[in-house]
Amino acid sequence: MKKHNFSAGPCILPQEVLKKASDSILNFNGEDLSLIEISHRSKSFVEVMDKAINLVKELLHLPKGYAVLFLQGGASMQFLMTAYNLMKVDGKAAYLDTGTWSSKALKEAKLFGEVDVLASSKDKGYNYIPKNYTVPSDANYMHVTSNNTIFGTQLKAFPKTDGLLVCDMSSDIFSRKIDFTQFDLIYAGAQKNMGPAGATLVIVKDEILGKTGRQIPSMLDYQVHIGKDSMFNTPPVFAVYTSMLTLQWLNDLGGISAIEKRNEEKAALLYAEIDSNPAFVGFAAKEDRSLMNITFNLTEQSNQEKFDKLCNEAGINGLKGHRSVGGYRASMYNALPLESVQVLVNEMKKI
Amino acid sequence: MKKHNFSAGPCILPQEVLKKASDSILNFNGEDLSLIEISHRSKSFVEVMDKAINLVKELLHLPKGYAVLFLQGGASMQFLMTAYNLMKVDGKAAYLDTGTWSSKALKEAKLFGEVDVLASSKDKGYNYIPKNYTVPSDANYMHVTSNNTIFGTQLKAFPKTDGLLVCDMSSDIFSRKIDFTQFDLIYAGAQKNMGPAGATLVIVKDEILGKTGRQIPSMLDYQVHIGKDSMFNTPPVFAVYTSMLTLQWLNDLGGISAIEKRNEEKAALLYAEIDSNPAFVGFAAKEDRSLMNITFNLTEQSNQEKFDKLCNEAGINGLKGHRSVGGYRASMYNALPLESVQVLVNEMKKI
Repeated sequence: MKKHNFSAGPCILPQEVLKKASDSILNFNGEDLSLIEISHRSKSFVEVMDKAINLVKELLHLPKGYAVLFLQGGASMQFLMTAYNLMKVDGKAAYLDTGTWSSKALKEAKLFGEVDVLASSKDKGYNYIPKNYTVPSDANYMHVTSNNTIFGTQLKAFPKTDGLLVCDMSSDIFSRKIDFTQFDLIYAGAQKNMGPAGATLVIVKDEILGKTGRQIPSMLDYQVHIGKDSMFNTPPVFAVYTSMLTLQWLNDLGGISAIEKRNEEKAALLYAEIDSNPAFVGFAAKEDRSLMNITFNLTEQSNQEKFDKLCNEAGINGLKGHRSVGGYRASMYNALPLESVQVLVNEMKKI
Repeated sequence: MKKHNFSAGPCILPQEVLKKASDSILNFNGEDLSLIEISHRSKSFVEVMDKAINLVKELLHLPKGYAVLFLQGGASMQFLMTAYNLMKVDGKAAYLDTGTWSSKALKEAKLFGEVDVLASSKDKGYNYIPKNYTVPSDANYMHVTSNNTIFGTQLKAFPKTDGLLVCDMSSDIFSRKIDFTQFDLIYAGAQKNMGPAGATLVIVKDEILGKTGRQIPSMLDYQVHIGKDSMFNTPPVFAVYTSMLTLQWLNDLGGISAIEKRNEEKAALLYAEIDSNPAFVGFAAKEDRSLMNITFNLTEQSNQEKFDKLCNEAGINGLKGHRSVGGYRASMYNALPLESVQVLVNEMKKI
């Protein structure tokens, strides 16, 4: 039975990527060895890493001066690494609190210095993006989360700052056109639009590093990883390879402009149903709605059993909302076809 | 052509594990979804994680009181995490320096307190294991590396200490019978005897944690990971699944006693050839020879071209020694069949 995978992450990946990834486990590159049993320093794997890094630079139109890293530990490790590498001794950082992940990020930063929470939408259960705040000029950096997976909100514009701008882009990188050069550091767990869990993308301007006065353990030091081309220690070979395949797929498709168009179409279709069908109500403020994670609920909870059954019979997977919001969440990452959204909308029409 | 994979890591895994891992990328558990596109909190994946943890406990005969974690970052991340979690503020730790990895481990520990290097075999290019040293009673812990992948030496006995004993067992865990309860903390990157790169096994006695007086960032805090059953953040799903399959394979085979017998046979076969064939010479001191990584060289370098050609034609892969030792290194992890060693020995006989 064909499944329609709306999982929030780990999430759907392109079928052709899954096929190639599966093949590589048995015989990589026609070498009669598995991808996961060859040396990460072999010519074939070094080529994979180089290709992945170059695809990131190409897809995001990154100019010289940005280093691209594939690390481990997920965005959660970046919560502390960004602070460790950028917050000066006795320094201060500014955070925008737009949800669970922002909130976890700033909690870790507090171990390294003063954290100034410029604005928070916690008062309304994180259903909007705060907009009126001033970035203090003495902050070592400003940190934002571009898309809030759990609540279904997304930053449409980013703050202007005189200092450094850091962005957790885990759940919407490679999904929409943005001027990526407005950021000094971007990080993203792979497991949404890029690949399987286990790799973390970090994009960082070389020139901002090494200025904190801190001694940083090697594995947490961006400069160490840059110096070794993401091979300071054994990289997560399979996750990097599968990410490379997904980036290649996106590039072949026409890059971010092409996927943005598709993502807008998919989101428009579902939001239109939510707004026109009295059986459903959206969670996020309209102007801040995410194109990636669409949160909604039934207006009558008595319809729940019926709707869940319909979804189940239609092969819809991963629609349950996060426990902190409840209701439903349709995650519509790059690899989700429009057809799957159409199937969901058809079931919604039956309520 | 059948390959004989002597890679030092990432390294050979059982064929049946590779087959199942490959299948899971297309259709996991008969669910018509890929292993890498389902939620890590789904029932099916939580079962994988539980199974992997229980297999570790069973295979190593761990009593109650030990927590088993699957983390990210490799042994290199453990170099700093062990110190962060165990070295008291203004504390001291004792290290045995038996090679590149010990040396990297103690370098990271120095950021957290005083490091007492009890003994080192650096004077002889790390070709032996130092044995005469006293563990100071005021050390917060003692750290050893059980097997030195690069140099081909292995600890046959472990120091007795009044304090905590920590072991980097990356390259020989699950390969030989040891009383694992003599350790308070064991860590190991997965990519030798356990699975693909991208997962790291940590085994730690609960009761030793939370006693340093330090505030530890969440991702570096063993107690945080224990509290969330290795799901504090998204785990490296594919690496954990493939590790579970390998542990299952080992268990079905008869566990560590059974594999130890095979590993001894394989090592005996190759060491016998090195010792009896005047064309070759071993690198490590005989009493400290590793069963996992066998380092040797040609007595006459003029034979190199001939030997390399023979190996190549026989499908032998990954035999090149590490650049810091030179010569050859045959890594003979659990999944390497005796047949591959026989093929290598046959080629050596031609020199």
